[in-house]
Amino acid sequence: MTNGNQTLTRYTATFVAHLYQAGMEEVVISPGSRSTPLALLCMHHPKLQTTIHIDERSAGFFALGRAKATRKSVGLICTSGSAAANYYPAIVEAKQSRVSLVVLTADRPHELRDVGAPQAMNQNQMYASYAKWYHETALPECSEMMLRYIGKIAERAVAVSTLTPKGVVHINFPFREPLMPNLADGNLWKNVVGQDDFFVSPPLISATAKFHSTQLKHIFEQITSKTRGLIVCGPEMDSTYHVAIGKLAEKLHIPVFTDILSQLRSMEHPCFIHSYDTLLRSSLVQEKLCPDWIIRFGAAPVSKALSQFMASVPFLAVVDEAADFRDPSHRADVFYCGSVISFCEQILMKENELTLQKSLYLSIWQTLHKTVQLFYKDCLGHFSDLEGKVVLPVLEQLDENDALMIANSMPIREFDSFYIGAQNCGFVYANRGVNGIDGLVSTAIGLAQSYPRLTLIIGDLAFYHDLSALLLLKQLPCNLKLILINNNGGGIFSFLPQANDQTYFEAVFGTPIDMDFQKAAVLYSLPYACADLADANQKIMELYETEGAAILEIYSDRFKNQKAHEKLWTTICQKIEPIVLELMK
Amino acid sequence: MTNGNQTLTRYTATFVAHLYQAGMEEVVISPGSRSTPLALLCMHHPKLQTTIHIDERSAGFFALGRAKATRKSVGLICTSGSAAANYYPAIVEAKQSRVSLVVLTADRPHELRDVGAPQAMNQNQMYASYAKWYHETALPECSEMMLRYIGKIAERAVAVSTLTPKGVVHINFPFREPLMPNLADGNLWKNVVGQDDFFVSPPLISATAKFHSTQLKHIFEQITSKTRGLIVCGPEMDSTYHVAIGKLAEKLHIPVFTDILSQLRSMEHPCFIHSYDTLLRSSLVQEKLCPDWIIRFGAAPVSKALSQFMASVPFLAVVDEAADFRDPSHRADVFYCGSVISFCEQILMKENELTLQKSLYLSIWQTLHKTVQLFYKDCLGHFSDLEGKVVLPVLEQLDENDALMIANSMPIREFDSFYIGAQNCGFVYANRGVNGIDGLVSTAIGLAQSYPRLTLIIGDLAFYHDLSALLLLKQLPCNLKLILINNNGGGIFSFLPQANDQTYFEAVFGTPIDMDFQKAAVLYSLPYACADLADANQKIMELYETEGAAILEIYSDRFKNQKAHEKLWTTICQKIEPIVLELMK
Repeated sequence: MTNGNQTLTRYTATFVAHLYQAGMEEVVISPGSRSTPLALLCMHHPKLQTTIHIDERSAGFFALGRAKATRKSVGLICTSGSAAANYYPAIVEAKQSRVSLVVLTADRPHELRDVGAPQAMNQNQMYASYAKWYHETALPECSEMMLRYIGKIAERAVAVSTLTPKGVVHINFPFREPLMPNLADGNLWKNVVGQDDFFVSPPLISATAKFHSTQLKHIFEQITSKTRGLIVCGPEMDSTYHVAIGKLAEKLHIPVFTDILSQLRSMEHPCFIHSYDTLLRSSLVQEKLCPDWIIRFGAAPVSKALSQFMASVPFLAVVDEAADFRDPSHRADVFYCGSVISFCEQILMKENELTLQKSLYLSIWQTLHKTVQLFYKDCLGHFSDLEGKVVLPVLEQLDENDALMIANSMPIREFDSFYIGAQNCGFVYANRGVNGIDGLVSTAIGLAQSYPRLTLIIGDLAFYHDLSALLLLKQLPCNLKLILINNNGGGIFSFLPQANDQTYFEAVFGTPIDMDFQKAAVLYSLPYACADLADANQKIMELYETEGAAILEIYSDRFKNQKAHEKLWTTICQKIEPIVLELMK
Repeated sequence: MTNGNQTLTRYTATFVAHLYQAGMEEVVISPGSRSTPLALLCMHHPKLQTTIHIDERSAGFFALGRAKATRKSVGLICTSGSAAANYYPAIVEAKQSRVSLVVLTADRPHELRDVGAPQAMNQNQMYASYAKWYHETALPECSEMMLRYIGKIAERAVAVSTLTPKGVVHINFPFREPLMPNLADGNLWKNVVGQDDFFVSPPLISATAKFHSTQLKHIFEQITSKTRGLIVCGPEMDSTYHVAIGKLAEKLHIPVFTDILSQLRSMEHPCFIHSYDTLLRSSLVQEKLCPDWIIRFGAAPVSKALSQFMASVPFLAVVDEAADFRDPSHRADVFYCGSVISFCEQILMKENELTLQKSLYLSIWQTLHKTVQLFYKDCLGHFSDLEGKVVLPVLEQLDENDALMIANSMPIREFDSFYIGAQNCGFVYANRGVNGIDGLVSTAIGLAQSYPRLTLIIGDLAFYHDLSALLLLKQLPCNLKLILINNNGGGIFSFLPQANDQTYFEAVFGTPIDMDFQKAAVLYSLPYACADLADANQKIMELYETEGAAILEIYSDRFKNQKAHEKLWTTICQKIEPIVLELMK
């Protein structure tokens, strides 16, 4: 063994040991030569968990799923060249949805860059604004100082990726040949410099943030003078805040609109109005029930009807842990940068000053919500072409130990509209950072590692986009129930103005791919069943009777689905509008 | 129709018309909403060819293939969000291998950025150093001035992407709703501002470059004083330069080493030594036949043996059209930035000054080359575990109308070693910018559109990495002969030092994926056959008797393949080393 090899081994081992020390428990590795030191030392580490996956795009989304499920930073390791570019889709999603990833790319050393060496390219800052922190490491050395350096880089990488807002750190490692570390040293992990020291304090969110006095004054003016208040809870938040929200809503006597990803849909609470996306299809409701003020928690909601409803509110307070100013309507009067709980507590602390006028506003929403709940329970199944009719039968199969991942495009909208009861289906996931249809199967398989059962609802284009992720199931068997709604193309476009001109519609937007997904199930040796929308219920029940991963394909017609939605919204309007007029007399 | 819609239509149509005007003939579109104006106006343009593909990663590599085959700039259109990130692997390959792409990304307008709007992210400069030119366009306006502006942006985009060195241009388009252009205007394409004017002159390469007088003096000193000269022709060059190279080599009486991607393997010329990769496996050859000086054209060669051989040469001249200084060994004494032909002509112009001493150097290489040619013809088939034994049977099926695409990792090395005759298999392609195993099927399908038949030789990991590209064949039937060498994993690692430690070898480097590719053929309704290496010849013949796209899977064992190579190189050394010693007496 050469001295260089000893240096490479100690240096890389120090980095890997400190990743673990700082809280990273898992890395996802894609094979390559230049990344050999990182890959082998992660494999060799006594505690780190490793997954190997040959497609870096899918590996990136799998890591995203792992980080979402564990709420810890997950590492990604790849070799030099285009491998690193394949991570980009998962990286942009991680940044935008605030998920911690540490991307470790191996690289050629400086003397082999910009000189036409094979598999070499400029990896510096290659993720542009998507990396919260980029650092290129020094070549391996093993002085005490350099070992302390590389250990601290690892600790910082994990810490920065987990500090609010969570995001992506990119560390680029130049390595010279020879690349094989020496794994024979029995004391490798015992002798790591600086181990057991914590360098960075556990990441904090700004839980103790305080209102600016003007902000508080503003909010109190609204709350006390205007009775039509509304709380909107947006996507992908922690579910531990529901008590604070419930208390605040009760005290203020106002409704709470709960986004499909707010984790509140499973909760029964008199103020929680889960069916707002349906109710707001009525322009009468939009007009007659417009609020005076809104407090919005979390990211912008999925529902387009709700976004329109919010766009003209006279007073809006936005609460967010990070200074991302997530307010696409530019209406926010108050932006509070802190935790939900700290916000609610500061309002409730001044309880005595809250001399509220009672109003009918909450009770009207409550009556409408109950009407829709009843109607859906009794009649949704009769809309035989409606893709949303699968929502209730699926939810009936789930309980609080489950997890649900909903794909972008149509499925997330169907669940937002039709999951309005208080069935507890466990945690609800989606990739709503940039709402892509890429990497959803990989993300779901990543999530599924942490749950006894995970259900993925996905359309045919998104499923096809990430079909090859199913290879992961060979290595990582899990209880993935994959429900594929196959309407042979981009169903969402039928709901957009693009559908009004049919000249190029099918070619550019419809994009039917005519895949026989049963054959895909055969390729991956997965149990498969199919159903029409009409007879889906029975097959959904049977799906949950099978063991392990399985696919249920449900055929739909995207044109008929759009028509069914139209008919449903008309029926709903006819049903609720007289009630609104009656109650507001 | 609103006035805004009229503005959007004219502005975008002007851009599209000028893309075509500047020489772009094809665009590849992935579906999305925000990109509607660009997508529909490209569809509507009377001359532009369009392809629709739902996976942007694959679409990027397909466009790369189209641009390689046509040598023209190809457009890519996608919507906002992660779609654009999926192009990144193809973009890094295009930059590094000098291929013209114009990436047109749709984006939300400024007021919807950095405010948590759905499917919005920072697309500015998102391809970091990989875009030669980045421009964000103004929002659509239709004053004469703004129409002239957007037309010139289109012309510049195409021109910059095609100027030497070719590369990638990224134009980001903010669009506000409504997004539907008005296609009813019958005069849309007639009334384009500035049409029929050429704004940028046709791209030039520096064909008229002249030597610096010191450079020329240096070169002449070497050429005239030292007899052991060598020309090395690297990958992915134009094939029209072979006459100039041949003349120069004859005049200088020196051998030419022809990389598998030099497009010279198909040419018989007394100075062309196609078998150097085999010959240089002998350390005796490396030592006894080391040259005094080398002139290298094109990129760094594929052969590792050749790179080692070149690393210690006392004098190296590198010739390249672009100032990329492609010399990983840092040995170049002369860097000539200009065309191959201009270089050769300037040397030959001074023919009278070339008073060369005759030497045995060329004739020794010629003798060795003939020995290896004969040996391979007679004996290569007997190395039954050698993956390279398929090279000759495949070449026998091809002629000058064919095209051949060779995947990275093992296939390119096998062809570099064993394609040493002068069979004309048509143009030889590979993605050697960053040597990735990603996107190779997509690239091949892109290439195949321009040839009566295209053969792709690919390993199992690379094939799996881009399996979903086969969807393109439904839309674009072509004569793709896909030869899959399945050694169930990363065969190349068996040749690297990583193979010496078996602890984690199979998990991290071997990575067997155990796919039944016959089922993949069924999924895509493709004719399929399989063979063992031993009986491959017959099946290869049969493959070429079928019509249209078809897959032939050839099973191999990566450990046995490595052993077979070892045995072959030993046999070769035993055969040629006595000849070297004899000839040099």
